[in-house]
Amino acid sequence: MNSKDLRTLLEGVRAGDVPVEAAAARLSAAPVRDLGHSRLDLHREVRCGHPEVVFGEGKTPGQLVEIARELVEVHGRLLVTRASPEAARALVVEVAGARHWEASGTVTVGAGDGDAGDGLVLVVSAGTSDGPVAEEAAVTARMLGARVEELRDVGVAGLHRLLEHVERLRAARALVVVAGMEGALPSVVGGLVDRPVVAVPTSVGYGASLGGLAALLGMLNSCAAGVTVVNIDNGFGAGYAAATMNRLAGDLQR
Amino acid sequence: MNSKDLRTLLEGVRAGDVPVEAAAARLSAAPVRDLGHSRLDLHREVRCGHPEVVFGEGKTPGQLVEIARELVEVHGRLLVTRASPEAARALVVEVAGARHWEASGTVTVGAGDGDAGDGLVLVVSAGTSDGPVAEEAAVTARMLGARVEELRDVGVAGLHRLLEHVERLRAARALVVVAGMEGALPSVVGGLVDRPVVAVPTSVGYGASLGGLAALLGMLNSCAAGVTVVNIDNGFGAGYAAATMNRLAGDLQR
Amino acid sequence: MNSKDLRTLLEGVRAGDVPVEAAAARLSAAPVRDLGHSRLDLHREVRCGHPEVVFGEGKTPGQLVEIARELVEVHGRLLVTRASPEAARALVVEVAGARHWEASGTVTVGAGDGDAGDGLVLVVSAGTSDGPVAEEAAVTARMLGARVEELRDVGVAGLHRLLEHVERLRAARALVVVAGMEGALPSVVGGLVDRPVVAVPTSVGYGASLGGLAALLGMLNSCAAGVTVVNIDNGFGAGYAAATMNRLAGDLQR
Amino acid sequence: MNSKDLRTLLEGVRAGDVPVEAAAARLSAAPVRDLGHSRLDLHREVRCGHPEVVFGEGKTPGQLVEIARELVEVHGRLLVTRASPEAARALVVEVAGARHWEASGTVTVGAGDGDAGDGLVLVVSAGTSDGPVAEEAAVTARMLGARVEELRDVGVAGLHRLLEHVERLRAARALVVVAGMEGALPSVVGGLVDRPVVAVPTSVGYGASLGGLAALLGMLNSCAAGVTVVNIDNGFGAGYAAATMNRLAGDLQR
Amino acid sequence: MNSKDLRTLLEGVRAGDVPVEAAAARLSAAPVRDLGHSRLDLHREVRCGHPEVVFGEGKTPGQLVEIARELVEVHGRLLVTRASPEAARALVVEVAGARHWEASGTVTVGAGDGDAGDGLVLVVSAGTSDGPVAEEAAVTARMLGARVEELRDVGVAGLHRLLEHVERLRAARALVVVAGMEGALPSVVGGLVDRPVVAVPTSVGYGASLGGLAALLGMLNSCAAGVTVVNIDNGFGAGYAAATMNRLAGDLQR
Amino acid sequence: MNSKDLRTLLEGVRAGDVPVEAAAARLSAAPVRDLGHSRLDLHREVRCGHPEVVFGEGKTPGQLVEIARELVEVHGRLLVTRASPEAARALVVEVAGARHWEASGTVTVGAGDGDAGDGLVLVVSAGTSDGPVAEEAAVTARMLGARVEELRDVGVAGLHRLLEHVERLRAARALVVVAGMEGALPSVVGGLVDRPVVAVPTSVGYGASLGGLAALLGMLNSCAAGVTVVNIDNGFGAGYAAATMNRLAGDLQR
Amino acid sequence: MNSKDLRTLLEGVRAGDVPVEAAAARLSAAPVRDLGHSRLDLHREVRCGHPEVVFGEGKTPGQLVEIARELVEVHGRLLVTRASPEAARALVVEVAGARHWEASGTVTVGAGDGDAGDGLVLVVSAGTSDGPVAEEAAVTARMLGARVEELRDVGVAGLHRLLEHVERLRAARALVVVAGMEGALPSVVGGLVDRPVVAVPTSVGYGASLGGLAALLGMLNSCAAGVTVVNIDNGFGAGYAAATMNRLAGDLQR
Amino acid sequence: MNSKDLRTLLEGVRAGDVPVEAAAARLSAAPVRDLGHSRLDLHREVRCGHPEVVFGEGKTPGQLVEIARELVEVHGRLLVTRASPEAARALVVEVAGARHWEASGTVTVGAGDGDAGDGLVLVVSAGTSDGPVAEEAAVTARMLGARVEELRDVGVAGLHRLLEHVERLRAARALVVVAGMEGALPSVVGGLVDRPVVAVPTSVGYGASLGGLAALLGMLNSCAAGVTVVNIDNGFGAGYAAATMNRLAGDLQR
Repeated sequence: MNSKDLRTLLEGVRAGDVPVEAAAARLSAAPVRDLGHSRLDLHREVRCGHPEVVFGEGKTPGQLVEIARELVEVHGRLLVTRASPEAARALVVEVAGARHWEASGTVTVGAGDGDAGDGLVLVVSAGTSDGPVAEEAAVTARMLGARVEELRDVGVAGLHRLLEHVERLRAARALVVVAGMEGALPSVVGGLVDRPVVAVPTSVGYGASLGGLAALLGMLNSCAAGVTVVNIDNGFGAGYAAATMNRLAGDLQR
Repeated sequence: MNSKDLRTLLEGVRAGDVPVEAAAARLSAAPVRDLGHSRLDLHREVRCGHPEVVFGEGKTPGQLVEIARELVEVHGRLLVTRASPEAARALVVEVAGARHWEASGTVTVGAGDGDAGDGLVLVVSAGTSDGPVAEEAAVTARMLGARVEELRDVGVAGLHRLLEHVERLRAARALVVVAGMEGALPSVVGGLVDRPVVAVPTSVGYGASLGGLAALLGMLNSCAAGVTVVNIDNGFGAGYAAATMNRLAGDLQR
Repeated sequence: MNSKDLRTLLEGVRAGDVPVEAAAARLSAAPVRDLGHSRLDLHREVRCGHPEVVFGEGKTPGQLVEIARELVEVHGRLLVTRASPEAARALVVEVAGARHWEASGTVTVGAGDGDAGDGLVLVVSAGTSDGPVAEEAAVTARMLGARVEELRDVGVAGLHRLLEHVERLRAARALVVVAGMEGALPSVVGGLVDRPVVAVPTSVGYGASLGGLAALLGMLNSCAAGVTVVNIDNGFGAGYAAATMNRLAGDLQR
Repeated sequence: MNSKDLRTLLEGVRAGDVPVEAAAARLSAAPVRDLGHSRLDLHREVRCGHPEVVFGEGKTPGQLVEIARELVEVHGRLLVTRASPEAARALVVEVAGARHWEASGTVTVGAGDGDAGDGLVLVVSAGTSDGPVAEEAAVTARMLGARVEELRDVGVAGLHRLLEHVERLRAARALVVVAGMEGALPSVVGGLVDRPVVAVPTSVGYGASLGGLAALLGMLNSCAAGVTVVNIDNGFGAGYAAATMNRLAGDLQR
Repeated sequence: MNSKDLRTLLEGVRAGDVPVEAAAARLSAAPVRDLGHSRLDLHREVRCGHPEVVFGEGKTPGQLVEIARELVEVHGRLLVTRASPEAARALVVEVAGARHWEASGTVTVGAGDGDAGDGLVLVVSAGTSDGPVAEEAAVTARMLGARVEELRDVGVAGLHRLLEHVERLRAARALVVVAGMEGALPSVVGGLVDRPVVAVPTSVGYGASLGGLAALLGMLNSCAAGVTVVNIDNGFGAGYAAATMNRLAGDLQR
Repeated sequence: MNSKDLRTLLEGVRAGDVPVEAAAARLSAAPVRDLGHSRLDLHREVRCGHPEVVFGEGKTPGQLVEIARELVEVHGRLLVTRASPEAARALVVEVAGARHWEASGTVTVGAGDGDAGDGLVLVVSAGTSDGPVAEEAAVTARMLGARVEELRDVGVAGLHRLLEHVERLRAARALVVVAGMEGALPSVVGGLVDRPVVAVPTSVGYGASLGGLAALLGMLNSCAAGVTVVNIDNGFGAGYAAATMNRLAGDLQR
Repeated sequence: MNSKDLRTLLEGVRAGDVPVEAAAARLSAAPVRDLGHSRLDLHREVRCGHPEVVFGEGKTPGQLVEIARELVEVHGRLLVTRASPEAARALVVEVAGARHWEASGTVTVGAGDGDAGDGLVLVVSAGTSDGPVAEEAAVTARMLGARVEELRDVGVAGLHRLLEHVERLRAARALVVVAGMEGALPSVVGGLVDRPVVAVPTSVGYGASLGGLAALLGMLNSCAAGVTVVNIDNGFGAGYAAATMNRLAGDLQR
Repeated sequence: MNSKDLRTLLEGVRAGDVPVEAAAARLSAAPVRDLGHSRLDLHREVRCGHPEVVFGEGKTPGQLVEIARELVEVHGRLLVTRASPEAARALVVEVAGARHWEASGTVTVGAGDGDAGDGLVLVVSAGTSDGPVAEEAAVTARMLGARVEELRDVGVAGLHRLLEHVERLRAARALVVVAGMEGALPSVVGGLVDRPVVAVPTSVGYGASLGGLAALLGMLNSCAAGVTVVNIDNGFGAGYAAATMNRLAGDLQR
């Protein structure tokens, strides 16, 4: 409720059009549906521009199906991340139009796969093992309205693989760069473009990679300006942020 | 040099307009000026949209003055971060138009202070001790062409201070949120807006704040989607990234 | 044995009422029952106001049943935390009146579920995944004599969910606030009430949550005064501390 | 503003007693005084039961004097923590009634030293080097209305020093236990009393004490239930929390 | 080979009693038996006073049986630590006289269980979960010739359980003190005796116990002089060190 | 493509021998084969002196077989590290000449086992548990053209085992030294030779070995000059580096 | 007070020889002298075999002189560790017989320098920078009655320097081994002797030595049995422990 | 002493040419000169191919001058690292031919500056702040007989600066690559050459660079094979290792 809404409501109270109790209720109510195990925020789309995203980890197949149905009914689309294989299967069976992205354990309803969407978010990844995280980022950005392309297996130890794609890098409105091990790819990409680069460290590596901490620290210390970072393996967060940036451009065009 | 440039150059070689040696030189040359102690990248503005920024830490006043003159001569403006008080004084004396931002140790030439700039980057900070980092972010974003406003002292332990400014938060194209201690402010702000939020942990705190690591970890684990993070105390990086996002919108408008 | 007891005992020795050997025994004996695998402290209720609590982790079903029977026989009630599902089933079958709280693996005898208890401990949690830890806190506080209410799914990225319950927050004598990820909820709650807030970090999160360390550090660095912290996932410790605070008020009322 | 206030305000609007603009202002205004460098929360006493506490670190003597005068004028008392020696001297000279607690760098106006205050907070410390942190806790708790006693130099390697004071330990409503090095004292004290124990790790120690982290971890892992923990060297936070617990009892008595 | 041996050998060479080749061989040979997978040091008993101990982790049942037979044949006794249940069963079946200590996964040949051995090593442990590590320490010390007693479940949160055994603590020549969680027990014990205390942190605990690091750091920072520390869960190392200290006394008595 | 190649290509363009499009293609093309899941760098042998090595972890047996066939067809040899047992079996069955090194999970085609190869890389390891990492280093170095010998079970706690092999140590061109626990062996070896020593920490150990971090830190702090370090358990990296050093000598001899 | 004392006291009470109040006083009194800033434990020599040692860090020259006089008066000797140069000078001037050991900042009264003392504690150190810590260990052990010898600059990268002293190593009853950097020396020494080895990591080193943590971890993971460890730079603790072990032998001889 | 020397010595003993005492002395003697504060290893050149290097940190000017004279007298050259400015001045004044390298605090006698030396070690550094560490590496490698070139300011965020020097990179026998912040440069360089790359992390950076740990971890996790790593800021170690590799090639050529 913004300040204009507030004044309108108060004018209604003064005019006697809005009963005091109703105004008090409006001023304290929140559009939340309580499922017992979870409380869904159904006004989020109004507030933030897109429906609530469901974090699947630790929720049972039954809980996820119940949540998914509720959200699809209200919004007509759905994004579930980190669903277990069992939960994903249940969603595909029980929720009409659900699609399972197996590498990342994402389930969607209503997301176009191909060239739909506005602008361009480019998801760049260093090695084949970074694939699941890159997929989570790509699916998320697409669900949030962006056109998305992917560029894979362009790690810094074989620079020529990356350098042959400089034009594609520069065509993107926002980039998600996914890398494990030393996490150097965002620095190199960040030096080649002047658009926002969202870096995602992955837990790929062993020993002193410390479950992705080495890559995370590398990215936070990037010598390339304009690089920002999300949590380890957080493809969702990166895709979401990149899509928000991409949409920002679109918003202003309209 | 993009692929179109490449073809043009090669056509020139075939036509005999461009001598082989000249083409070879062009293909391997880089517009770098070598000052002995530093090598300046004078083509960066062409490539990245803005001149090289000078990291002042560890450079002597004399070196900084020499670098600054070179850059101001080529680009007409200048951004030096983390200059020591001595170096800042030398720059103000020796470089025409230089201004010293004392809290953050930033020195600029050619940056408007007030309402100039396009779009809106809002720099939000939690406590008075976060001021220097917020200033570095604001000055940087302004140097990179953004209109910048600041909102200070709105930490999460006194929510009402923040909530009275929700409209301002929502008016920004991109937000920089600066906080030390537990670093919770970006999560709260991220839940109130649907624009990109760049979080900057500061080293404000003691004991288990671990020099800003606690705030950094908190921000990386933010439960609010769309939040990305830069290094501890890295106001420059945050301002740069937010200005890039802000400009992205502007680019497309034009 | 306090100083008054000591004097009484010594007077008895002087009067010849208490033989020297008996006094020596009294002065060195401790009311401990030895089961071989464990040594039970049966005087704890006298000393600390409530019977020994059993930490179920690493104990076999058989050992737990034996311990439980002994404690129920002496005290008429029982609290076992972190029982494995097998051990919990064994306790429910073998110990009369035992109830299994499945989410948290807690087993109780003699704890009222509903509105019984004095004062009010409010257990607030950020996300659905924090549920098991919140349950452990609630069951523990109830076992220790507090009336307990719960408030779930009120994470800081959707502030309005929390703000609609400010009155409930302020009605509690002591609050337990449970959160994973960035652990920001206790700071926000702590800014809204002037009663003691016990913060419990949970291991919910991934990557740089470091198994709950990020939330722990965030809570230790809380900018809200009056917040104290317990170990990661330690719902028991938080419920116990909050009940002790709650009871403190009650003690003085009587 | 609680729900009763809200209804009263809205009734006033309906009755025409309160103009719409005034009501809108009230609903969005906050009682904050802006000093340029800081924004003071002057309604905090209403909301939280005591005035804002000033964190002195990083503020200049001049800023602190300005803040102090404003707060003393409104509330008649003052608590500044971590003031530098220079700032403390300035406060003592410029602010009537100011007292400097040198070990901890605390400055107060209006706090009784001796036996004033209600209830009893006992501040227990392990070694002489823990003195400054213990003093900060004691001064803070006293400022917040508690009667405070101190028990010093009772580290666990000389148990008899502690055990001779068991009666005093048990007389307190709430205890603050301050220790560096291995941080074992709260576990031992926690096993001797059934009142809330707030543990404060100090940065006393060297090498693997890791600036107090060893003590912090020890306290978080305390085997004694009812122990909660604050940040390293955070005597203020501990004293504040203990006074809140102590007052809770008093609130209910009245 | 000490300097006396060296001179004797050289005299033999000069006298012609020892051929040059034989002396060269002696000077470079080492009494090592190579089993392909392992190389056994059969002269260790001569050099260090007891046979090589076998670290069972990562060795197959077949390898352990082969090693065990070789060592028993030469030395008549055997100590294997951290054998898997399968390997332990194989050793009990295949090696005459082998005994399996199940809690700790230790297998021995030729170790007396009861009151045999010289001096007294007392193994003190804080909680029932510390039992396996305490057993490993006790079995090891006994194998190395010490008389060993155990004192269990005497954690610092119930001091009276420990204090009733002060006489037993003071009767030991050397003490092994085993504790997880905050690891405070060695500090308390170290303050009660003037004999060497070897502290063993265990990985018992959760969350911020960090797999035993909290206990380890606590012990390293012990405020009680005379406490030395071994690795987490290293009951073997502690038992070995304590037996070495215990034997030192015995050596000198003879 | 080096500068000579570049000039030749440009001369060809000028002469009309090389069409512009072909030159543009050459200048931007990269010899990469795309298998969908992976993109193989088939020119690596030209560039780096040996074919691409396949990191088996996280790849399915089917993917590995496909990659292996492609690489064997082009290069006639193959090195796969960290293949799962299933993947290794599939490779042995499906790829002619494939050999499985079971301890380390390495699969090779075309690597001589015995005394083939030039120079001498000596792989020294401290304990039997370090065997798999030592094997990975040895197989890798042999695949890269080095003659390789191994020296096992020569940990620093039994110095004589190592000292009897000083001559062998000094005969090597480059040494790989593998050790877990405290990681002291490279320092001792580094003090005995004047050839490059590549140290490999292993994750062998428990408790405060922190999964190999203790050994890693020890090696990085080695007091012996000339020791360089690779990641924990990275036998491949060490074998590769040592073979590169060994070959360097060979290159110059030819 | 042991159990025999207890019975004697109680018999005295029964016989009327000891008044009840006196017995109660004795049972709760402790021989502590309170100096305001510190509370001295004057019975420690009775209980632990030697007077209280004074930790000088953080105490003023004046406080140390006051404490020193008190202790010298009661015990006739004194050990102060980590005194600042100013405090040390004050002690040497104000306390008769005080000697300042400059490298380590230790001050003693009544400690023989030369060959006095029983048994033999050998203090071995790796590099010249480890000297101050070695001195603290040597002075402490000497104060506690041990004969002490030192062996310096025998780091593992030059093994021959150490190996020429094997006989001296084996002559000691207990050894203190001091090393920074990778901390490998205790493992090597531990493999050469069968007496207790107390390892002291020092903060000597840089970068990844992490202020001595690398050496500490190395020592905790020592592959040589019988090695126990004290805190970083804790020469006092090591000397104390070694002297306790050394005296143990002596105790039994008498 | 190798096995041939041993046989010769023993033959001499048998023949009566070498007295037994002399042989015993030879077998146990070591060529160490004891200066009180330090023990110099004068045979190191024989054993390791170059004289002992002096670590200047923590040594007084007087001690360094004494050591330097001794070493220059025996070897005719000298390398001192990390000398304080005072010590460096003393050395330049007191030791003939001494040269001070100011950026790195290195002092040398007898090292050629220019193009002397064999082979080629290339020292590559990312930023101007990495200069001192690069200088230490270059001076060290030159002292150890290598021809050395430097390539500075070629960080990965401006790839073109590096790529114009690919030919120079490939001309080196061994490379030292110095970088702070994210430490990505060695990965990029390692992908461009097939010679050994020694990576040196520097402590350049702030916040989450953790004093160079981020760069260190990045380098250890390098995706480029053939990269080995030394300690943070350890230019000496890297230069030494690279020179050893460089010389290896030379050794075989001769």
